[in-house]
Amino acid sequence: MHAESLRVLLDAVRTGQTTVDEALRRLETLPFEQLDFAKVDHHRAIRCGFPEVIFCPGKTTHQIVSIFGKLVEAGGNVLATRATPDQFGAVHGAFSSAVYHEAARCITLRQLAVKPSTGFIAMVSGGTSDLPVIEEARVTCELMDQRTERFHDVGVAGIHRLLSQSKALREARVVGVAAGMEGALASVVGGLVRAPVIAVPTSVGYGAGFGGLAPLLTMLNSCAAGVAVVNIDNRFGAGYLAAVISRIGDSISK
Amino acid sequence: MHAESLRVLLDAVRTGQTTVDEALRRLETLPFEQLDFAKVDHHRAIRCGFPEVIFCPGKTTHQIVSIFGKLVEAGGNVLATRATPDQFGAVHGAFSSAVYHEAARCITLRQLAVKPSTGFIAMVSGGTSDLPVIEEARVTCELMDQRTERFHDVGVAGIHRLLSQSKALREARVVGVAAGMEGALASVVGGLVRAPVIAVPTSVGYGAGFGGLAPLLTMLNSCAAGVAVVNIDNRFGAGYLAAVISRIGDSISK
Amino acid sequence: MHAESLRVLLDAVRTGQTTVDEALRRLETLPFEQLDFAKVDHHRAIRCGFPEVIFCPGKTTHQIVSIFGKLVEAGGNVLATRATPDQFGAVHGAFSSAVYHEAARCITLRQLAVKPSTGFIAMVSGGTSDLPVIEEARVTCELMDQRTERFHDVGVAGIHRLLSQSKALREARVVGVAAGMEGALASVVGGLVRAPVIAVPTSVGYGAGFGGLAPLLTMLNSCAAGVAVVNIDNRFGAGYLAAVISRIGDSISK
Amino acid sequence: MHAESLRVLLDAVRTGQTTVDEALRRLETLPFEQLDFAKVDHHRAIRCGFPEVIFCPGKTTHQIVSIFGKLVEAGGNVLATRATPDQFGAVHGAFSSAVYHEAARCITLRQLAVKPSTGFIAMVSGGTSDLPVIEEARVTCELMDQRTERFHDVGVAGIHRLLSQSKALREARVVGVAAGMEGALASVVGGLVRAPVIAVPTSVGYGAGFGGLAPLLTMLNSCAAGVAVVNIDNRFGAGYLAAVISRIGDSISK
Amino acid sequence: MHAESLRVLLDAVRTGQTTVDEALRRLETLPFEQLDFAKVDHHRAIRCGFPEVIFCPGKTTHQIVSIFGKLVEAGGNVLATRATPDQFGAVHGAFSSAVYHEAARCITLRQLAVKPSTGFIAMVSGGTSDLPVIEEARVTCELMDQRTERFHDVGVAGIHRLLSQSKALREARVVGVAAGMEGALASVVGGLVRAPVIAVPTSVGYGAGFGGLAPLLTMLNSCAAGVAVVNIDNRFGAGYLAAVISRIGDSISK
Amino acid sequence: MHAESLRVLLDAVRTGQTTVDEALRRLETLPFEQLDFAKVDHHRAIRCGFPEVIFCPGKTTHQIVSIFGKLVEAGGNVLATRATPDQFGAVHGAFSSAVYHEAARCITLRQLAVKPSTGFIAMVSGGTSDLPVIEEARVTCELMDQRTERFHDVGVAGIHRLLSQSKALREARVVGVAAGMEGALASVVGGLVRAPVIAVPTSVGYGAGFGGLAPLLTMLNSCAAGVAVVNIDNRFGAGYLAAVISRIGDSISK
Amino acid sequence: MHAESLRVLLDAVRTGQTTVDEALRRLETLPFEQLDFAKVDHHRAIRCGFPEVIFCPGKTTHQIVSIFGKLVEAGGNVLATRATPDQFGAVHGAFSSAVYHEAARCITLRQLAVKPSTGFIAMVSGGTSDLPVIEEARVTCELMDQRTERFHDVGVAGIHRLLSQSKALREARVVGVAAGMEGALASVVGGLVRAPVIAVPTSVGYGAGFGGLAPLLTMLNSCAAGVAVVNIDNRFGAGYLAAVISRIGDSISK
Amino acid sequence: MHAESLRVLLDAVRTGQTTVDEALRRLETLPFEQLDFAKVDHHRAIRCGFPEVIFCPGKTTHQIVSIFGKLVEAGGNVLATRATPDQFGAVHGAFSSAVYHEAARCITLRQLAVKPSTGFIAMVSGGTSDLPVIEEARVTCELMDQRTERFHDVGVAGIHRLLSQSKALREARVVGVAAGMEGALASVVGGLVRAPVIAVPTSVGYGAGFGGLAPLLTMLNSCAAGVAVVNIDNRFGAGYLAAVISRIGDSISK
Repeated sequence: MHAESLRVLLDAVRTGQTTVDEALRRLETLPFEQLDFAKVDHHRAIRCGFPEVIFCPGKTTHQIVSIFGKLVEAGGNVLATRATPDQFGAVHGAFSSAVYHEAARCITLRQLAVKPSTGFIAMVSGGTSDLPVIEEARVTCELMDQRTERFHDVGVAGIHRLLSQSKALREARVVGVAAGMEGALASVVGGLVRAPVIAVPTSVGYGAGFGGLAPLLTMLNSCAAGVAVVNIDNRFGAGYLAAVISRIGDSISK
Repeated sequence: MHAESLRVLLDAVRTGQTTVDEALRRLETLPFEQLDFAKVDHHRAIRCGFPEVIFCPGKTTHQIVSIFGKLVEAGGNVLATRATPDQFGAVHGAFSSAVYHEAARCITLRQLAVKPSTGFIAMVSGGTSDLPVIEEARVTCELMDQRTERFHDVGVAGIHRLLSQSKALREARVVGVAAGMEGALASVVGGLVRAPVIAVPTSVGYGAGFGGLAPLLTMLNSCAAGVAVVNIDNRFGAGYLAAVISRIGDSISK
Repeated sequence: MHAESLRVLLDAVRTGQTTVDEALRRLETLPFEQLDFAKVDHHRAIRCGFPEVIFCPGKTTHQIVSIFGKLVEAGGNVLATRATPDQFGAVHGAFSSAVYHEAARCITLRQLAVKPSTGFIAMVSGGTSDLPVIEEARVTCELMDQRTERFHDVGVAGIHRLLSQSKALREARVVGVAAGMEGALASVVGGLVRAPVIAVPTSVGYGAGFGGLAPLLTMLNSCAAGVAVVNIDNRFGAGYLAAVISRIGDSISK
Repeated sequence: MHAESLRVLLDAVRTGQTTVDEALRRLETLPFEQLDFAKVDHHRAIRCGFPEVIFCPGKTTHQIVSIFGKLVEAGGNVLATRATPDQFGAVHGAFSSAVYHEAARCITLRQLAVKPSTGFIAMVSGGTSDLPVIEEARVTCELMDQRTERFHDVGVAGIHRLLSQSKALREARVVGVAAGMEGALASVVGGLVRAPVIAVPTSVGYGAGFGGLAPLLTMLNSCAAGVAVVNIDNRFGAGYLAAVISRIGDSISK
Repeated sequence: MHAESLRVLLDAVRTGQTTVDEALRRLETLPFEQLDFAKVDHHRAIRCGFPEVIFCPGKTTHQIVSIFGKLVEAGGNVLATRATPDQFGAVHGAFSSAVYHEAARCITLRQLAVKPSTGFIAMVSGGTSDLPVIEEARVTCELMDQRTERFHDVGVAGIHRLLSQSKALREARVVGVAAGMEGALASVVGGLVRAPVIAVPTSVGYGAGFGGLAPLLTMLNSCAAGVAVVNIDNRFGAGYLAAVISRIGDSISK
Repeated sequence: MHAESLRVLLDAVRTGQTTVDEALRRLETLPFEQLDFAKVDHHRAIRCGFPEVIFCPGKTTHQIVSIFGKLVEAGGNVLATRATPDQFGAVHGAFSSAVYHEAARCITLRQLAVKPSTGFIAMVSGGTSDLPVIEEARVTCELMDQRTERFHDVGVAGIHRLLSQSKALREARVVGVAAGMEGALASVVGGLVRAPVIAVPTSVGYGAGFGGLAPLLTMLNSCAAGVAVVNIDNRFGAGYLAAVISRIGDSISK
Repeated sequence: MHAESLRVLLDAVRTGQTTVDEALRRLETLPFEQLDFAKVDHHRAIRCGFPEVIFCPGKTTHQIVSIFGKLVEAGGNVLATRATPDQFGAVHGAFSSAVYHEAARCITLRQLAVKPSTGFIAMVSGGTSDLPVIEEARVTCELMDQRTERFHDVGVAGIHRLLSQSKALREARVVGVAAGMEGALASVVGGLVRAPVIAVPTSVGYGAGFGGLAPLLTMLNSCAAGVAVVNIDNRFGAGYLAAVISRIGDSISK
Repeated sequence: MHAESLRVLLDAVRTGQTTVDEALRRLETLPFEQLDFAKVDHHRAIRCGFPEVIFCPGKTTHQIVSIFGKLVEAGGNVLATRATPDQFGAVHGAFSSAVYHEAARCITLRQLAVKPSTGFIAMVSGGTSDLPVIEEARVTCELMDQRTERFHDVGVAGIHRLLSQSKALREARVVGVAAGMEGALASVVGGLVRAPVIAVPTSVGYGAGFGGLAPLLTMLNSCAAGVAVVNIDNRFGAGYLAAVISRIGDSISK
């Protein structure tokens, strides 16, 4: 190990086997990055609560089960996204504690004890088609120990449904919003709450929606301050970001 | 004139000076469009209430006053858009009944008697920067005999201001909405009223607003049914369209 | 029910069981939106004539029949769009009064008495490929009690076919135009009539048509005033908008 | 006041002057939004720490001083952005405690006592041209009581400058990144820290940068999780968002 | 027939059964377009040499044979594009004189006598993938009686192949060029000849070719004067245009 | 001169001073292109009728007069485009036979005898703003000996004005069309005539016209066959192309 | 052959059978390009080391084997790209020395002796999905006799992995970088090395990646000098370019 | 200094003042990046031959002279780009050996001895407007000790001018190509030479050139292999890249 080779060098300096100049020369040509390697990876582990996410599309069931197994061995929580019920069946056959989240189309397996957050993340979606997007974000948050609450089917075309829940919404520490079509929901929510809003445009829509470009531009141009945007259909990313922000409010926050 | 030459031809048929075959041949080679020429122009006059709009930018004050004079002679109402106070000064010097609409930056001169509409058009704008756009639309409507009511500064970032006027809004026969930034206002208004909504995206904004592209896409993808869109910053066009729709409800409607 | 709980509170005030201060406190913390909930939904019902549209693609035949059934129970007119003949077969098996509109690919079932409109909506399309678009719009209008007339295959490349019907066209209260390729039809029609024109760009075309972008831009930039645009291929939306506008001219108009 | 009119109604119910049915009717037709009006605005005030930001471009010096005065009277902290030294001169003449932030081109005037945050926000910029952007964001954060630290001129073309500060960077509670050209800085920073990253693309660049589109797309597609994006050149918005997120970690956080 | 009803009217004028005023009134309300109807269609027939083109994709073999039959009956030359060998088999079974052009994937059936043009059209393509495009254009020209010559596989990456044929190229009356990838061939050819160049961008390419956008822009920005552009992959259109231009040089030209 | 050095070489072969092998070697290493150099340039001269066009913007009056002088000396016709009246004044001072075309903003000086074409080119424009574009094209054609006829202000919003001239239009050998806004004019004209149509989109318009992109796409997607497109605002190019095509019909055609 | 006909002509001059003038005339009308034909092709062969690449998709196995055979006969190295294992099976059956590169999905067959380069090309990729792209580039380089070294999975989200190899990276003569998502890797690598960087954006990504547009723009706007960009997914092109550049450093370099 | 503090630490280990464990702990927490800092910057200096380029637009003459002075003191060659003659006047007043390159609009001052390259870089431009772009690239190369040769005004519309120099072109070690309009020159040059081609699209053009987008796409889609692309108008970047590649062939190459 690296720390060991450093110790050997310093011992040599201490005993006079190596001169200071020689040690200096060797230290300066040491590939500097190796010093930080383990530490950074350690940070990564702390950061996510799970080292890697399994993106199921394009993988065989065998591959999914196999990767799943390796992540289980690693000891953290495990997340597989865009999983079909059949793929879950195979995973569940091998790991009986794996759980399927149908709306989110995710498989999770929790191995770390839950440290529930003191606040909650509101998960808001406009229409039925946006549901899988916001649900994957929600499952991600939960696996990262953040409590969540659902506010589904509260699109701006029927603004009263959203407003009837605005009080509950205002109590959230972070708000995630998934919306396709014109994506106006993020702006309206941004105007109702003082918490930061994580907006994820979805590719739901057609024609001049241009595969999610319309809600993306809408969200970027939001007249409400406090709205942050992630990539179109970036389900996991939205959840991860919301969870990282929410953690700031927990005692373990930095 | 054309009708006259037709009469001459028919008289020649009647008196035998021209055979039927010859008349037939001449009628068939007549440029058919001329038959409809006057009628169409007559339609145009009925349609607008004023035959032509003076777009002031790029014209000299002298040109504006001169064109204004010709339109006054034509006898209809006159509208000059994007006029500066100085340009109005010159017009007013020549035509003392000309009126300046400061917020709309329009000059109008009414010559036809007002036939006030039975319903009204709600003119809704999101922010102060959108005001000139909606005001030009509003002045256009008024000159076309349509009553209007203003709902200004009711952007979605402070949704309560809009909602506090939703009852009044619901009474409008037509609703015009001007919004820049992300343009979400059109969707929210579209969800509140049952009247048709004429949405005009404005180039107010910056960055990923791309000169009005963002609110344009937002409005085209509106999840609320009943929203019609016109070109970016099409102030006069939005007003003209709203008025033409509103007229359907008047007794003089087609 | 909400109105009931309000009555209970007021009764308590009346009988002295609750003080005015206590009632005041409870009223102020009442989620304000609930007050308006029913009313808005009622508005929605009035507005559409049918509460919800069934978009068939991506649904199983079983799901379509099931949702259809629920909407039938709700008592309004029912509309299912983009339906295949097979899907209609299943629906018709369950609801014998359901009707299939082949060109529009829609299933309708009328439960409300027809209140025929006093004016009619002209439905204009450029080419054979645009037919399904304009027909779905037309069926939507008819189900909303608006009379319609067809003007099919009158594209601008053979302008005489359009012009030969311009007289009839001028009698329409509203004109709907569906056109793909370059979408010039909307401008030409807009120059012929004084009624408002609802233009729906279609994705018919190829190459630099960019999936409907070309006719969309054409229609937005129309040199004819009075043209309103909806999203690419927004068939139902064009019909709904045209019907809402046309209703203004009926006695039942707002 | 509204609460008063409610009391009058309830008193009338209590005394029998108004029947419950009548009260019910009046309550149901009450514009529901007014109930929430003051509260929402109160929220707004809490949320920002200053009710409104003065955007100087396009305003006369007289206007700026005048608006500045009104905001000072309102009692909160005041922020004027994109201010020239001359404009500051005039403001300072009227309000001697106003401060000019040269790099940020902002004027601030603090009226509320500072409640310093327990964590800090790292403000990272790639090149000299991005400095005004990140500095406006930083001044905004400071005025919202969030401590900040500067990490300037640490673009990815000389990655060692960034890495030499990665330890300090990792201690931030939130990281703001402004970058133009290709905008790769956000991804690299996102890979180094576990705090949320607020990325603001700048319009610095030329050619295929397309006015900020290139860094915008870069940031949206970041392969590092935990990166949130705001509009191109959205200086104030990035600062506001960073501050709102950072506040979650303070004792006063929601 | 229309001409007949006109004759009846004129006869009535001649015999005094109808007054001139009445005839005048009726003539003016006559839908003017009908006068020109037949003539225009007649023009169409002259113009194309075949009234309609059969675009095979999306049609059943039965439909293709059936439409083909109707066009054969109409007496002109018949063209079916994008036809498979199987589809040709069926057509050939019914019409033994139908010919299949394999490279062009077209079926033709000539019924009109050939009136060979005095000049020829050079058909130039850059790569093998562009061959079907230029060949459909070529077959179209031939069916319109224009002689053609092939210049295939003369892309700019091996400029000598093109230059070795530049003498022959310069003798063409019109030049058609099909090129995908970067589409530079049109500019180079435009610099070599004095004949007009009809450039058709093809969707051959990948990545930043954006489905033909790259060669389209290249051709529109050609630094060589005399280059006209048609839509991406507009095979028939390029051929039709080239033939219409080439006909100007024939004795039968207008 | 090159031909001379070739003659020297051949003379040396003839007299035996150079062996055939040596001559062969020297001929093969000769830069092949020089052989064709003069001929190609000669072609250029024939092709245009004037070797070079002076684009005035960005040039000083002195430069313009100086370049003009050189082109006069070359003996061909001279064309200077986008010239101001002042620039013409200076040119006219030096060359009294120079002519200014006010609408086209061009200066011409004819030195070659006119060989009038047997057909004419119709020059069609939609609105007043498109006039300078079509006029520069027209002046270019005239200088290339092609007769032209003007059809101005015949936009599609008032289709009768265009149709009333359709007979004259049908007699043109080539039709040039300039249109901004939505550019629908090209399609309508394309449907009326059998001559080839050269369509030039203009940057006249605003908002979603995107600097001429809208009419460009419209023209490329024209549903009328026989429409060729040149770059946005390519005034000279449209004229040059129209003239080159029209020449095919003259006796001097290739 | 051509050289022969030249010799015949010169012999005729020498013997007086042909006059110098006649020879001169014939030489000047000789198609100049033929002189250079063979030479250019010879250049091509030298240039690539293999005359043609077989792009397998869309070809039958039979076609691939057949073309492969022809190229083998031509005597150079042979490369077939995007080959499936099955296609390799067939090729290998016919040519037992053919080699399959699984990660690159390429088949190669070396016939020319290896002349190993003195320097090496570093092949850097960001993620697993970019592997096939960089591997095809690498195989291309190897077949062109350039040594390569792999630096895989060193994306910027874990910058330490890249930095730990920066010393080795700095020793490369040329660096190839393939990256999808946001494509930031090219900039970071460009900042670490002094060798030229060939950046190939990949279409790996989703949403606002727009099929590779995001990394393409990133790479074009790189703030690090020395970065050259090729088309999205241009695997072979990147390898070919890197090899051509690297060859400059070999003794056989031009 | 860092190396010094390391020495102090090692001395302390050697003398026993610090234990090995303590030294180990301190070394591991050392910000690793500092170890590499100087070295990297040293690399930078070697790499460019000049540490920084002065971009003149937006700087005062005083600023330019001042920065110029600092770079002169640093001892390397100095380059200032986009400089006006007046700015050069001021620089020359202070540094009499500064040289102005009029066509390139650059100021250079050479302080390092020239080590002329063994090969040369061909600098090719299409039109007069592209001249400043290619000249800045050329001056950059020269300052980096690379010989260059000019091939100006050899656009593809007059291909013979380019071809007449193709022999000289083929002798270059690297070829730089600047072209606006449609940018086809890069493909044609790429087909003529076996050296790598650095293509820089210029914003020269109008209309559908979209500020250089057209030649950018053309160059990225080049059908000739061996073409590398840099950003639109990236003059210095193209020169720097060409020089870095060319250096590979010099004895001092890496």
